[in-house]
Amino acid sequence: MEVLHDLLSFSNLKIMQNTDWFSFSLDSFLLANFVEIHLKDKEILDLCCGNAPIPLILSTKTKAHITGVEIQKEVFELAKKSVEINHKEQAITLINKNVLDLKEDFESDSFDVITMNPPYFKTSQKSVVNQDSHKTIARHEVAITLEESLDIVRKLLKNDGRFAMVHRTERVVEILALLQKYHLEPKRIQFIYPKVNKESNLFLIEASKNGKIGVKLLPPLYIHNQDGSYRKEILSLFGKS
Amino acid sequence: MEVLHDLLSFSNLKIMQNTDWFSFSLDSFLLANFVEIHLKDKEILDLCCGNAPIPLILSTKTKAHITGVEIQKEVFELAKKSVEINHKEQAITLINKNVLDLKEDFESDSFDVITMNPPYFKTSQKSVVNQDSHKTIARHEVAITLEESLDIVRKLLKNDGRFAMVHRTERVVEILALLQKYHLEPKRIQFIYPKVNKESNLFLIEASKNGKIGVKLLPPLYIHNQDGSYRKEILSLFGKS
Repeated sequence: MEVLHDLLSFSNLKIMQNTDWFSFSLDSFLLANFVEIHLKDKEILDLCCGNAPIPLILSTKTKAHITGVEIQKEVFELAKKSVEINHKEQAITLINKNVLDLKEDFESDSFDVITMNPPYFKTSQKSVVNQDSHKTIARHEVAITLEESLDIVRKLLKNDGRFAMVHRTERVVEILALLQKYHLEPKRIQFIYPKVNKESNLFLIEASKNGKIGVKLLPPLYIHNQDGSYRKEILSLFGKS
Repeated sequence: MEVLHDLLSFSNLKIMQNTDWFSFSLDSFLLANFVEIHLKDKEILDLCCGNAPIPLILSTKTKAHITGVEIQKEVFELAKKSVEINHKEQAITLINKNVLDLKEDFESDSFDVITMNPPYFKTSQKSVVNQDSHKTIARHEVAITLEESLDIVRKLLKNDGRFAMVHRTERVVEILALLQKYHLEPKRIQFIYPKVNKESNLFLIEASKNGKIGVKLLPPLYIHNQDGSYRKEILSLFGKS
């Protein structure tokens, strides 16, 4: 969840954000790097897009059209500005609505790839108190639960289409079960570790709609050196773009 | 699946084996090292114990009584010899039967800990051809399926008791779902990688009967150096015993 000022300097992208609300995170960068985009892909959808880091990064890698969906009006406005500043209006369309309402906009089986960096935390009594804050909506399942989003993903994804997500490792067992429930068969998983010899806190997963059973577990991804600086593998993700 | 002559020299244990059938593997050593044994544990059960590496290793770590179960008569006889050579007859009881028939021997909720290094492969038409060979029974789900063994585990394990298993990573999604089906809640997972930068081939998992939801993902375990030799973390597992 760190602010990526230093990392951003490696990229040619400019991303608008209001750090009083929340910052786009390294997680989105890792997800955009993890998802496999194929030459034949035509339509990509990014759910819970925030200030649009994933659409912007993907736009540097593919000619496919990218749609980003963000529920929060003010965050959506920032995302629009970022798209304009980077001259990506042709490549990226942004929609300001709840993912739950997307069925009005698209036919079933519309997308080759769907990505999502969703709210990580289940709603608790405590979080409900602040459910109007920008941070709460981005981090807690207030506006939509994970299961509700997977139901939408299953509908909007083409057969054999890919769904890629980043989420918290402590929820991996529940998430694998939910993916299978919605016929999104896990194909590739990569666990993220903050440092060597620490437990994993996040993971990346790609699933295929109605795909064959059988998953690959990629080499682990470590974020920081022991001194807290970013590892060179992480820096190189930014150097590439 | 390598023969561990060189590694065994680190240990004070002697384990009898007929390498024409199959060799006890590094997997069993890793599982015996992974499972958490508590001071208050009184009864431990090792399913599909082969020539008893797990009971023997655990006997060096705990005062709990250990029961090993092996279906194959000749392998069971070797296991008995190993127990005798190591003077572990008081600590270890061996049973020669199919895990499916264990309900005759034990009440429900009898064990604090159950371990299993099961047959890794589903039965295919091809494997059925050789279903009488020692190797096939140890490696393929001929005598018992994973789901059947988990049903037994759930019955024989005490509430909050721990079940630890090693299995192939390509089956991890299926296995997590099966564990939950049998109320064995995954608590700790460690992925095993043959080398740095390779995909994981095996994983260790510990589940708790009727345990709370929430899993920890331990740092990855790498087996070999780039030159194929064992890494020092692996050698140190043997040095300890």
